[in-house]
Amino acid sequence: MAGRQSGGAKETTAKTDEKGITVTKEANFSEWFTQVVQKAELADIRYGVQGFVVHLPWALRIARTLYQYFEEAVEADGHEPMLMPTVIPEEHLQREAEHAGFVPEVFWVTHAGGEKLERRLALRPTGETQIYPMYSLWIRSYQDLPFKRYQSRITVFRNEMATRPFLRGREFLFFETHDVFATHDDAVRQIESDMRMMEEVVRKKLFLPFIFFRRPQWDKFKGANLTFASDTLNPDGRRSQISSTHDLGTNFAEAFHVAFTDKDGQEKYGHQTCFGPGIWRILAALIAIHGDDHGLVLPFAVAPVQIAIVPILFADKAKENAAVRKQCGALREQLAALGYRVQVDEREGITPGEKFNQWELKGAPLRLEVGPREAAAGSATVVRRTDGKKERIETDRHLLGRELQKQAELVDTAIRERAEASFANNTKAAVSADDVQDILKKHRGFVKVPWCSMEMDGAACAEALKAKTTAVVCGTPLHAEPVKKGARCCVCGKEAKHAVYVATSI
Amino acid sequence: MAGRQSGGAKETTAKTDEKGITVTKEANFSEWFTQVVQKAELADIRYGVQGFVVHLPWALRIARTLYQYFEEAVEADGHEPMLMPTVIPEEHLQREAEHAGFVPEVFWVTHAGGEKLERRLALRPTGETQIYPMYSLWIRSYQDLPFKRYQSRITVFRNEMATRPFLRGREFLFFETHDVFATHDDAVRQIESDMRMMEEVVRKKLFLPFIFFRRPQWDKFKGANLTFASDTLNPDGRRSQISSTHDLGTNFAEAFHVAFTDKDGQEKYGHQTCFGPGIWRILAALIAIHGDDHGLVLPFAVAPVQIAIVPILFADKAKENAAVRKQCGALREQLAALGYRVQVDEREGITPGEKFNQWELKGAPLRLEVGPREAAAGSATVVRRTDGKKERIETDRHLLGRELQKQAELVDTAIRERAEASFANNTKAAVSADDVQDILKKHRGFVKVPWCSMEMDGAACAEALKAKTTAVVCGTPLHAEPVKKGARCCVCGKEAKHAVYVATSI
Repeated sequence: MAGRQSGGAKETTAKTDEKGITVTKEANFSEWFTQVVQKAELADIRYGVQGFVVHLPWALRIARTLYQYFEEAVEADGHEPMLMPTVIPEEHLQREAEHAGFVPEVFWVTHAGGEKLERRLALRPTGETQIYPMYSLWIRSYQDLPFKRYQSRITVFRNEMATRPFLRGREFLFFETHDVFATHDDAVRQIESDMRMMEEVVRKKLFLPFIFFRRPQWDKFKGANLTFASDTLNPDGRRSQISSTHDLGTNFAEAFHVAFTDKDGQEKYGHQTCFGPGIWRILAALIAIHGDDHGLVLPFAVAPVQIAIVPILFADKAKENAAVRKQCGALREQLAALGYRVQVDEREGITPGEKFNQWELKGAPLRLEVGPREAAAGSATVVRRTDGKKERIETDRHLLGRELQKQAELVDTAIRERAEASFANNTKAAVSADDVQDILKKHRGFVKVPWCSMEMDGAACAEALKAKTTAVVCGTPLHAEPVKKGARCCVCGKEAKHAVYVATSI
Repeated sequence: MAGRQSGGAKETTAKTDEKGITVTKEANFSEWFTQVVQKAELADIRYGVQGFVVHLPWALRIARTLYQYFEEAVEADGHEPMLMPTVIPEEHLQREAEHAGFVPEVFWVTHAGGEKLERRLALRPTGETQIYPMYSLWIRSYQDLPFKRYQSRITVFRNEMATRPFLRGREFLFFETHDVFATHDDAVRQIESDMRMMEEVVRKKLFLPFIFFRRPQWDKFKGANLTFASDTLNPDGRRSQISSTHDLGTNFAEAFHVAFTDKDGQEKYGHQTCFGPGIWRILAALIAIHGDDHGLVLPFAVAPVQIAIVPILFADKAKENAAVRKQCGALREQLAALGYRVQVDEREGITPGEKFNQWELKGAPLRLEVGPREAAAGSATVVRRTDGKKERIETDRHLLGRELQKQAELVDTAIRERAEASFANNTKAAVSADDVQDILKKHRGFVKVPWCSMEMDGAACAEALKAKTTAVVCGTPLHAEPVKKGARCCVCGKEAKHAVYVATSI
């Protein structure tokens, strides 16, 4: 190895190197997250308007793959794409009484050029009140049902006070389905489908674990009868909501007259649901859960570059360098033909070691190093992002595909197993608020407690618990077992109707 | 054929059928266009805010394929994706003096919730003034150049007076590249690349003919030194601009301090270009140029459904119907496996004839009809959208791929040849404004005339020509031959420096 311009990755990833992450995820998760967002070049917060971030290429390439997976999933589930305007007339936003609670969070367009608009327009905080007036025009008969549409690759706007890239923004990436059914039973079946889609995309492709909860009534969506939501856990033990599905009943249907003539000739209101995977929050979870002290760690399914090829060149070896470059080019062609997202890092004025560090920071699952020795032998050194181990592989075109598939599976398995291991045993049990307080001092996860009521009469207990422990009530898992007979609410001591999960929220 | 629930397509496409198009494209292009937008379910203008339309599934599925082609093209050309916020701080929008001319067209966000914002925010009318402040932060050295980024699947906002779906909107689909180069020569080369991308996507995949013009100075982009634009021709002879590329010189670089340290150690301003294919206008051109009196006609490259399979079922033939359904399902599987976008139209309560009409209206390039006879024989009847002719084809799995490829080529060739034939001979020559007036009475296209000046001193002639003939000056093709010696401007009679193309604009 003597004479190489750079050593391996480990030597140069000094913790004090400002290009790398300077804190550990374990010791200071919040600062670690901020540094990864900045140093892996995911978002730039210097746009000059609070809560409005610039999405940099690396984040956008991950996000569009997420979008694509959800588009495929909801289309396989019978949804068609549509695109609504960015603005909503004020009277529509206000029409459903409870939903009008969004108004204090809304940005208003009031002028065009020098003229004041006749009526102001809201930048959409979410889609219901822009979509359902159209559904009222489009849906006529039971034959139109189920009616399933979605919007993808859009943004929405809410005037949040505290903002942070991928966690909470004044403008953030959005995806939403909006469905209308003839009966409430059909709507309930859709909630199960929404959960299945989260399983397929988020757990199976991205390896992000979560629990699909029914939320308590004091934490439901404005205008919904019931809200369901997926919660994952950040490494600091805080729960992060990464999707929501709302059972809207006929609330909006009545407000916007989304009605159909049923088989019996009667006009009836549609039963509505809507589902939104949180694109930003899923990005945040990818960063937070899979990342390590060297930066991002991306599963193959979403890595913008799955295989980074780094040529190892020497100042005084023109002939060997030519062979290296040729081998890198050949590998790129072969791997691209196999369907991999591959990039040869041909940048000049930067050492191979710096390149290794940068690809680690960006989370590329595999790196191939090709030096003169590899070029001469028709091989490459493969380095897995998950364990950093180096292995010489043959690059013969007949073997390369199988070898890379094996390596990809090794990386993905390591990512999945680590995430699952840290999510396993995430739930401890408690019977009192004092217990919860004690447990959360060291436990990074959920605490399961007996609870009096998920209806509004349980809200006071939730407030008391939060004041004492910082924990919020996540709800009950969709198909939860009933609470033990005789159990008492961990706050008020009344008879417990549920065993709820509580956790500190982000 | 006796006993079928419906006859062929021709019989049932009565011109008086309100579901079909009730005017001819030849006789009343404008009304024909409006009907196609509505009846092929492309856009709904009933959203309730002028100039803000709802994109329906069919249009959105075409649009996203367009986006994908441009994304692939610009990435192959070295661009990376990014995403900027929807709003722009007012001081940025105003910073480049000429570009500030956009201000009268801008929508303003002035409030959040009940509070007035400290400074108002513009809904972006285009990207320059939101992007270049960031470029000023990101670009440091000649090694950062060329710096090429793009935004895709976004919308922009302009308070246009007259609005029409896909032609002119207050919010419309947008795509833009923004490039920075070390030298003006590099910038000029990018303009050629932009033209090549238009050729690759728009002419070669979509079969839309156009001319790439250099615009006169009085029709350039606000803040540019030079504007280049692609014009196609609608069937009524009006030119429609479907892309623009701007040579921004160092105007914005100076206003926003987009500067780099060159090899010589000197700080220099970047030379900038930006390119935007008009996604809406290209959609409009697809409708206008390829469509016919039965509705849309879509090339294979963009058809959301390339092959519509219609089962022909009979009320009293359960056994035969089962065979038909099985054959349809088998065809769908095989064709999907071959990579085609295929749909079996299984809707009930609607006759096969109505289905034929609807798929014609929506422009599906091929239709396969499968009745009991076809099912028994292992065949299908294929109908091409372009000529409506029916042909029996074998559906044996070994032959199907080649047969469908042949049929696809037949449709695509017909679409391309028809578009090219109507664009050919599109340019007549004239030497006076009177000639132009006479020619445009019957000629649907460009008129080539000698012209005094493309600089601002030619603007008065352009106004005079427009007043007399309605024609505007499109400019000179990018690599135009020089005007004949001794020629005189068709308006003022001064020495002609250029041979410009003029046409009535949409």
